[in-house]
Amino acid sequence: MSTLPPRRLNIDNINPHVRVAKYAVRGELATKAEEYRIRLENGDKSLPFSKVISANIGNPQQLDQQPITFFRQVLSILEYPKLLQNGEALKNIFEFEQDVIDRARTLLKSVRTVGAYSHSQGVPIIRKSVARFIQLRDGFPSDPSDIYLCGGASSGVNALLHIICADRTSGVLVPIPQYPLYTATLSVLEAQSVPYCLDESTAWGTDVHAIRESLSKAKAEGVDVRAIVVINPGNPTGASLTADDIKDVLDLAAEERLVVIADEVYQTNVFIGEFTSFKKRLRELQLEEPVKYGNIELVSLHSTSKGMVGECGHRGGYFELVGFDQEVVAQIYKFLCIMLCPPVIGQCLVELMVNPPKEGEPSYELYQREYTTIQEGLHERALALYEAFNKSMEGVDCQEPQGAMYLFPQIRLPSKAIAAAEAVHRQPDEFYALRLLDATGICVVPGSGFGQKEGTLHFRTTFLAPGTEWVERIVEFHKAFMDEFR
Amino acid sequence: MSTLPPRRLNIDNINPHVRVAKYAVRGELATKAEEYRIRLENGDKSLPFSKVISANIGNPQQLDQQPITFFRQVLSILEYPKLLQNGEALKNIFEFEQDVIDRARTLLKSVRTVGAYSHSQGVPIIRKSVARFIQLRDGFPSDPSDIYLCGGASSGVNALLHIICADRTSGVLVPIPQYPLYTATLSVLEAQSVPYCLDESTAWGTDVHAIRESLSKAKAEGVDVRAIVVINPGNPTGASLTADDIKDVLDLAAEERLVVIADEVYQTNVFIGEFTSFKKRLRELQLEEPVKYGNIELVSLHSTSKGMVGECGHRGGYFELVGFDQEVVAQIYKFLCIMLCPPVIGQCLVELMVNPPKEGEPSYELYQREYTTIQEGLHERALALYEAFNKSMEGVDCQEPQGAMYLFPQIRLPSKAIAAAEAVHRQPDEFYALRLLDATGICVVPGSGFGQKEGTLHFRTTFLAPGTEWVERIVEFHKAFMDEFR
Repeated sequence: MSTLPPRRLNIDNINPHVRVAKYAVRGELATKAEEYRIRLENGDKSLPFSKVISANIGNPQQLDQQPITFFRQVLSILEYPKLLQNGEALKNIFEFEQDVIDRARTLLKSVRTVGAYSHSQGVPIIRKSVARFIQLRDGFPSDPSDIYLCGGASSGVNALLHIICADRTSGVLVPIPQYPLYTATLSVLEAQSVPYCLDESTAWGTDVHAIRESLSKAKAEGVDVRAIVVINPGNPTGASLTADDIKDVLDLAAEERLVVIADEVYQTNVFIGEFTSFKKRLRELQLEEPVKYGNIELVSLHSTSKGMVGECGHRGGYFELVGFDQEVVAQIYKFLCIMLCPPVIGQCLVELMVNPPKEGEPSYELYQREYTTIQEGLHERALALYEAFNKSMEGVDCQEPQGAMYLFPQIRLPSKAIAAAEAVHRQPDEFYALRLLDATGICVVPGSGFGQKEGTLHFRTTFLAPGTEWVERIVEFHKAFMDEFR
Repeated sequence: MSTLPPRRLNIDNINPHVRVAKYAVRGELATKAEEYRIRLENGDKSLPFSKVISANIGNPQQLDQQPITFFRQVLSILEYPKLLQNGEALKNIFEFEQDVIDRARTLLKSVRTVGAYSHSQGVPIIRKSVARFIQLRDGFPSDPSDIYLCGGASSGVNALLHIICADRTSGVLVPIPQYPLYTATLSVLEAQSVPYCLDESTAWGTDVHAIRESLSKAKAEGVDVRAIVVINPGNPTGASLTADDIKDVLDLAAEERLVVIADEVYQTNVFIGEFTSFKKRLRELQLEEPVKYGNIELVSLHSTSKGMVGECGHRGGYFELVGFDQEVVAQIYKFLCIMLCPPVIGQCLVELMVNPPKEGEPSYELYQREYTTIQEGLHERALALYEAFNKSMEGVDCQEPQGAMYLFPQIRLPSKAIAAAEAVHRQPDEFYALRLLDATGICVVPGSGFGQKEGTLHFRTTFLAPGTEWVERIVEFHKAFMDEFR
C-alpha cells in the first residue's frame, strides 16, 4: 500500500504566534487532573486519593459554591417565559418571590427573547443598568453608550488588545505575576508583553518605580509601549490597590500617554480596605487637574464569573470605555460585530449582578444571606490556607490575603528537588505541582505559568474548595516532599 | 485653559488590520435601522413606516420565530434545578413532559451546574451526543474527542483561521458572495482572502473550474493557499451542494493539499434535494481511494443559531476535526483554552439540538409539530419572496431558493440611479438599500457586503419576517425607485 500524502498543516507551518502562546491555567497539569477525575469516576482504586480538587482555576461553582437563588430563578423564567402564565404556582410551590417575577417580566419586555442576537454592544436596557451601577459605586456619572457587554471579561480583553496593538513593535505593560490571558493574547497578536514586577515584599504591591524601569528599558529597545494592564484586586496575587497606588498609575499613564486597562473582575472580592475603581480615581483627579488627566484613555472590565456571583459558565461581563476617540470606538464596535453578540442569557446575568434585590424587596433577605455566606466562606478559607502555608509548611512564605480568589505562596525548594526537576526537564515549581497532584489529587498552577522574579518559585491556588481537609493534605504532601529531597 | 494632550489611540495608529476589516451585516444600515426602531418606540410619527423589519441578519427569534418548547423547558430547569423538587407541579401546572424532566436530570448529572466553566473543548457527554448525531446522519463513525463545542460557529471559525494562517502569505479560498465573517477574520489576521466566484447562472453553483482559476492566480502571486471555505447550504446564496459538487471540492483539496472548512450551519435548511455532509462524502471517497483522500483535513461546523432551532442568542455550536495532525490539534485546543469555555447553557442547547425527542417519547409530537411549522413557514415565505422578486419587480432576477435563510436577487438599476449613488459617494446597491430602508423600514444588506462579480448588483434579504405584507412594501418601493430614476 502506498503511503498517505503528508497533511497540509503541521506544527512547523501553522501560526507561529499561536504556537508560542502560553496558557498554563489549563495546561498539562489540568489535563492530568481531568484524567485522574475520569479514572476515579470509573472506579479506579489505585490512586492515593479519592477526589480531585481543581484549585488551578477560579471556578467557584465547580467547587460547590451555590448560585444565588434570585439570579437563577429569573434566568429560568427567561429561558421559559410561559412559567409566567402561572405566577401563583411559581410563588406558592417553587417559592419564587414577586420581585423575581417582576424582574423577569421587565427584562423580557426589552430583551424579548434570549434566543435572538442582541445589539453587538449588548442589550440597551442592561447597559443602562450597568451605567447606573457604576455611577452608584463611584459617585460619578457613567454613560450607557460607553458600556460594552462581552462574553466574560476575557473576550473584552481580546477585543481591546486587538485594537490597541498595531504591529510587532506595539507593547503593553503587564504585571508579573499576571493572569496569562494577557501574555497569551499579546503573543497571538505578535505584540510585545512588557513585564513589570509586583513587589512581593509589600504583599505584591504595584510599584510605580518598577513600572518606570520596565518602560524605559522597553522604549530603549524600540518598543512602542501603548498601554498598561493593572489587575485589581490582583490575579494571582490577591493584592488590592489603594487610592494612592491608583493615582501613581494614572500619573504614569498621563505622563507616558498609556491606555489603562483596569481588570477589575475581583472588585467585590476584597478582604482588607475598600475597593477603589480606576474610573472613580480618574474622575477625582480630572476635577483637580483637568488638563493633565483630561485625555487618559481607560477601560475597566468586570465579569459575572467572579465575586459572589461565580457564574463562570454563563460567560457574562462588560467593559466601560472612558476617554476614547470616537473613531477608535467605532473600530472596537466593528470588531465586536464580527462575533455578533455576547450570550444573551449571560447579558441578563450582568443585569442581575449590577441590580440585585434591594432592601425591602421580597428576595433581599435570602440574597443578602447567600451573598454574605459565600463572602465569609471565602475569607475563612483564605485565612486557613494562609495560616497553613505560613505556619505549617517549611520554606513556604505567603502574603496576607487581601482579595480575589487566590493565594500565591513562595516556595523554597531544596537543591536536590531542583536537580530532580532538571533531570526530568521540568521547571522546579512545575515538578512540585505535578508531585502534589500525583500525591493528593490537588491541582494548582506553578508560578512559572504567571511569571515570577528570576530565582523565585511559587504556586497559585484558589481558596474555593470547601472544607479544610484538603489544606491538611497539602501540608502533609509538602512535609513528605521536603523530607524526600532534603 | 490649556488644550488637552492628544489621546494615545487614534484611527491612524490602531491595528490597521482591524481597520480594513469589513463586516456589512451589522454596518451603517443596521445602525440606521436601529435608530429608526428607537424613534418609533418613542412615538415618532414622522416616518413613512410603523415598523422596522431587520431582514439584514439571520436572527429568527427577533422576527417572531418561536423557540422549540422542549429545548426551553429543559434549559429553564438547568438554570434553576430546584424546579425538579416538584416534578409533579411542573407536569400538571406547566405541562412539562416526563422526558423534559428526565433530560434535565441527565444533563445535570454530568454538567452539574451551568454556572461553572466546562472543559474548554466542551462538556464530554455533550460531545458524545454530537458524535452520535453525526454518526446517525452520515452512517460513518464520529469520535467525541474530535468534537469541539464553541460559542456559535463564528468563534469556531475564528479559532481555526487563527491556526491555519501563519503569516501574510497564507491564503484561504473564500466563495464570492460569502458570509463576511471569513474575509473580516482573514483581514484581522493579515492573511489573504482568495476569492472564487459562485456561478449565479446555475443558481449559485460551486464551480470547481472557477476555484482552480483563482487558486492558480493566487499561487502565481506568491500566496500560500492553505484552505478552502465552502458554505453549504450557501450564505447569502442559499445554494445547496450535490454529492458530486462535494466530490469536486474534495478532489481539488486532495490534489492541491487544501484544508476544507465546511460551514454547514444551514444543514437542516434545505428545500430541494437532501443535505450531504462533507464528512460523509469524504468517508465514502476514502473507502474507494484510501490513499488519495486519506489525509484530507476537514473541519465541519454546525450551530444552534440556524435551522429550526434559531437560538442565535445562546451562542451554541460545534466543529468536528477530521484528519488533523495531533500536534496541530493540541494548538487548537490551547487557543480555545485562552477563552476558557463556550457558554455552558449554549452547550446544553447543542445537546438538545442533536438529541431531540424521539418518536414515542412524550415531547415528540409537540416538538415535531413546532419543527415542521417553522420549516414550512420558511419555505412558504422563501417562495413568496422569490415570486415577488421575479414576477413583480422590474430588472430583478432571483435564483430559486434551495436552502439557508436568504435570497440574493440581482438588481439592474437605471444609469440615473447609478449616477445618483455616485454623486453621494455610495455603491449603487448600498444607495438602493438605504433608500429601501428610508422608505419602508426594511433593512437588507447590499451585495457589496458579501462580494459580487464586477458590474453586478444584489442585495441579501432573509425570509424570516412573518407575513407577506412586507414583501409588497418592497415591490412598491422598487416600482417608485425605478420610476424616479428611469
